Amino acid sequence: MSVTAAKGFDAAAVAAGLKSSGALDLALVVNRGPLQNAAVVFTSNRAQANPIIWSRQVIADGTVSAIVLNSGGANCFTGPQGFQVTHATAEAVGEALGVSAGDVLVCSTGLIGDQLPLDKMLAGVTAAGASLGPHGEQASLAIMTTDSKPKRSVREGEGYTIGGMAKGAGMLAPGLATMLVVITTDAVISSADLDSALRNATRVSFDRLDSDGCMSTNDQVSLLASGASGAEPELDAFTSLLTQVCGDLAEQLQGDAEGASHDIRIEVVNALTEDDAVEVGRSVARNNLFKAAVFGNDPNWGRVLAAIGTTDAAFDPYDVDVSMNGVRVCHAGAPDRPRSDVDLSPRRVDLRIDLRAGAATATILTNDLTHDYVHENSAYSS
Amino acid sequence: MSVTAAKGFDAAAVAAGLKSSGALDLALVVNRGPLQNAAVVFTSNRAQANPIIWSRQVIADGTVSAIVLNSGGANCFTGPQGFQVTHATAEAVGEALGVSAGDVLVCSTGLIGDQLPLDKMLAGVTAAGASLGPHGEQASLAIMTTDSKPKRSVREGEGYTIGGMAKGAGMLAPGLATMLVVITTDAVISSADLDSALRNATRVSFDRLDSDGCMSTNDQVSLLASGASGAEPELDAFTSLLTQVCGDLAEQLQGDAEGASHDIRIEVVNALTEDDAVEVGRSVARNNLFKAAVFGNDPNWGRVLAAIGTTDAAFDPYDVDVSMNGVRVCHAGAPDRPRSDVDLSPRRVDLRIDLRAGAATATILTNDLTHDYVHENSAYSS
Repeated sequence: MSVTAAKGFDAAAVAAGLKSSGALDLALVVNRGPLQNAAVVFTSNRAQANPIIWSRQVIADGTVSAIVLNSGGANCFTGPQGFQVTHATAEAVGEALGVSAGDVLVCSTGLIGDQLPLDKMLAGVTAAGASLGPHGEQASLAIMTTDSKPKRSVREGEGYTIGGMAKGAGMLAPGLATMLVVITTDAVISSADLDSALRNATRVSFDRLDSDGCMSTNDQVSLLASGASGAEPELDAFTSLLTQVCGDLAEQLQGDAEGASHDIRIEVVNALTEDDAVEVGRSVARNNLFKAAVFGNDPNWGRVLAAIGTTDAAFDPYDVDVSMNGVRVCHAGAPDRPRSDVDLSPRRVDLRIDLRAGAATATILTNDLTHDYVHENSAYSS
Repeated sequence: MSVTAAKGFDAAAVAAGLKSSGALDLALVVNRGPLQNAAVVFTSNRAQANPIIWSRQVIADGTVSAIVLNSGGANCFTGPQGFQVTHATAEAVGEALGVSAGDVLVCSTGLIGDQLPLDKMLAGVTAAGASLGPHGEQASLAIMTTDSKPKRSVREGEGYTIGGMAKGAGMLAPGLATMLVVITTDAVISSADLDSALRNATRVSFDRLDSDGCMSTNDQVSLLASGASGAEPELDAFTSLLTQVCGDLAEQLQGDAEGASHDIRIEVVNALTEDDAVEVGRSVARNNLFKAAVFGNDPNWGRVLAAIGTTDAAFDPYDVDVSMNGVRVCHAGAPDRPRSDVDLSPRRVDLRIDLRAGAATATILTNDLTHDYVHENSAYSS
């Protein structure tokens, strides 16, 4: 059900002709109220797509009536003409629904640097506006690009529901938000509380997913609340449930990352600060040599230490323990159990780095570097 | 001739049995004087191999009699036992040559986390000490790991010579120095001037090579001066000639990078500062998506803008020009000439990024991300 699991939301998905395959490529999600509260987090990339520039204005007042999303083109670095396409799309949604264009978020995903065809966007919006209903599942299909499957998650709170959808398989290294994610809830909750909950949830979920080190220009996570359940949850409880939904979606993104054959969970423990733990984990997540070794089922822990040695985190490189899938292969910066004891054949890889410097912990999710990653990304736009 | 092109230097190379292939794996370079001045730059990785820890002590007084280098093992994260191997190797060289072990630099390269066999190292040193001569070419073979060919460079100054050798094909993203490089000269020049010249030369050569974003634990560039020519060059002229040798070796390293099918020259122009230009160039050199696109001969300039948007450099992402092999595909952040005008089939790729923000320039050298890179690095230690 994804974005239509919570009461007060309708969705539609159509094939607007943006994808040459003729697949679904435009989704519309509408908040029927009674509330129209919302919060959004955006990519921290300074290179921002036109829909990001537009949506930043829309969310300024914390009110959102609808969100329209397209695959088949990122509408990024397309100049003033590209911004006009985004603007006209929001106007068309406003007209179709009888709401202000200034309350319509826009998201786009696909190739950077190509114009989106305005006529197809407008016809798609009209068709979507005419077919709204409990179509969250179809909406999650329409936002896919190189994704092999849709990503959806629903959790039930006390008298309310949180549901969401996500897309993303490459350029997967969020700075603040990541990829395209829409989450809806029927809880009664203010825009300010939504913002607080969303920032807390994304900080420990999407922000800790770093599949390929490449940050997108179009990342956006939108959270819309209808209040239709009448339930008024405590902020802590709501944040906790929202974090579960975000974490579930982040793991689905990791599991479907372009070309990946391993899902690597990097747990950094006993760091002096949480920031240190994140920095250390991310340095490993971005190390091509380590990631290629995992692809080859090679427990090459020396590459882990070479990677973390490039960080500014507080630890002694010669007093670090490294375990892979439960086998401690490095103790105090020297060889411990033999590499041959580590079995890296399962898709899931647990890498544990004990910095022995404090009590803070963070977990970063990444993938291996494979032939299929190179293949998919050397042929994407051609 | 590499390291024995300059007067006053002998070298030897032997097969010490460190490589299972039986190939040359230990090199010795000796400075016969009359001067024994030297300068060294080391990796800025905090995770440092035992030979780096040793060599830092040796160079403290600016005097070096000899340098011994081995492939077949990095001697990094091998604990106190590993340091003993380095120490004993330097002692053996000192004994063979009748010099102080404290004037013997040691370099190692190969797999991290495995012990180097002490007996083979000592026997290798003895054999090398007994076969010294004008064997710079053989020495450049003995330091190879995954290199497909040796890297050597010689330049003639006014009455003096600078020659060098280098190895390195992966884990190629220097922080201060890179890989193993030994450069010799017969110029009469002080250790302080050697240090100044070496830092200036490496800053614009090895430091601007970033093949795969992975910084080594064993990088070391050593410069030894014998004074045997009697020529006393101006420091500026010497630095300029040394920079040519370093640049030549850096390009040879790029040309032989593991699995690469393209040598990419990223020229960042009109930056506000040189640091900005380097940061922008490096962000592209580390972007797997762009590098995979080049492998696929795909001029995907959107990935260039997405990469540079993650930097803190001063520029407006919507006022940037991007050219590939002379074709301006992006002007002021919008599409310019069609992608199809760009021919990426030659090995050499020229990417030019005009930030339109100032007058500073920097060039970063990198490679594409290929199937062969993944293959070589998923199978390296197995």
